[in-house]
Amino acid sequence: MIELYTWPTPNGRKISIALEEFELEYNPHAINIGKDEQYDPAFLKISPNNKIPAIIDKATGRSMMESGAILLYLAETYDKFMGDDRYETLEWLMFQMGGLGPMLGQAHHFLHYNPGKAPYADERYRAEARRLYGVLNKRLSDKEYLSGSYSIADMATWPWISRYEWQDIDWQDYPSLKEWYVKIAQRAPVQRGYKVPIEMNAIPMPD
Amino acid sequence: MIELYTWPTPNGRKISIALEEFELEYNPHAINIGKDEQYDPAFLKISPNNKIPAIIDKATGRSMMESGAILLYLAETYDKFMGDDRYETLEWLMFQMGGLGPMLGQAHHFLHYNPGKAPYADERYRAEARRLYGVLNKRLSDKEYLSGSYSIADMATWPWISRYEWQDIDWQDYPSLKEWYVKIAQRAPVQRGYKVPIEMNAIPMPD
Repeated sequence: MIELYTWPTPNGRKISIALEEFELEYNPHAINIGKDEQYDPAFLKISPNNKIPAIIDKATGRSMMESGAILLYLAETYDKFMGDDRYETLEWLMFQMGGLGPMLGQAHHFLHYNPGKAPYADERYRAEARRLYGVLNKRLSDKEYLSGSYSIADMATWPWISRYEWQDIDWQDYPSLKEWYVKIAQRAPVQRGYKVPIEMNAIPMPD
Repeated sequence: MIELYTWPTPNGRKISIALEEFELEYNPHAINIGKDEQYDPAFLKISPNNKIPAIIDKATGRSMMESGAILLYLAETYDKFMGDDRYETLEWLMFQMGGLGPMLGQAHHFLHYNPGKAPYADERYRAEARRLYGVLNKRLSDKEYLSGSYSIADMATWPWISRYEWQDIDWQDYPSLKEWYVKIAQRAPVQRGYKVPIEMNAIPMPD
């Protein structure tokens, strides 16, 4: 049994989707970041960076923070979803962790939550979102998934793309990425994991 | 022999320092990002995200992009520097990749390169830099290194802290982090790796 501390954000959804894909039993616990519950001292012990998601795996006694580390822990411990090539999977997992996630996160902050507060920053992150979509679209132009077969790199990336409505994206420019996005959105474990720990909107789908 | 494509930035220095620490032979190639050399089509084949650093390991035939993936590749291939606990090392490596590096990178963009262009963003990243320094300082308050013994998590983190002069940091608030920073700055492999591929300023040292 895995205890999952999460909230319906892209990083949170990576892990609820992964636990569904790995077919592991888990208890979701809602950490409402809108109410600052991530600063609770009990949660801080599991996640010293005060961020969701975090897990405790009762089978191994291990607690883990950082979504990329949790995905790698799951792939190695339960021996699944490392893609066709371990190091290509790690490259694209790190691309998500170091570039795609943080920069789209800034796009959400400026374009969705605080539009107009800093026009220079709005444009910086709008342009970077488009550049990152272009990198993914090119990678997927001759591959079904980021590392050949479906892997933790896809599970890390998909929830960030599912917030495309906050990122000023025109899907016409990214046909290969769109195909990948829709295909993954149709997976039953993704649809289940998307709704954890509380059901928000349905998965958005491009026209 | 490892071919290293790099430039004297925090992400670039992670790998030149690591190659010195691992005692691996390497050829540094300067990719001058000030002259957009990262967009050269030959470089794009190794690094589809147009970013340094990247490597080609002639011993295994593998090319790798993304500093975090390169560090993990080196640790696994050459069996060193995974710290006292593999998954704690991965947690702190991912903390660096997903949080510390991207957010300090934004602090550099706004506070160092473009101060005053977006005062709201200046304050956002100044505050986040301080929060991140606080997380590291707390982690190091009862540990010599981020994962017990010196590891790739420290090699990933140290070059970002070495740009503290661009981040509006008051070292008085972070005594444990300062001790860790100075100790690592004094390592001979770090001093050698810091100067690759071209010698810039000496390593900055807090008073």
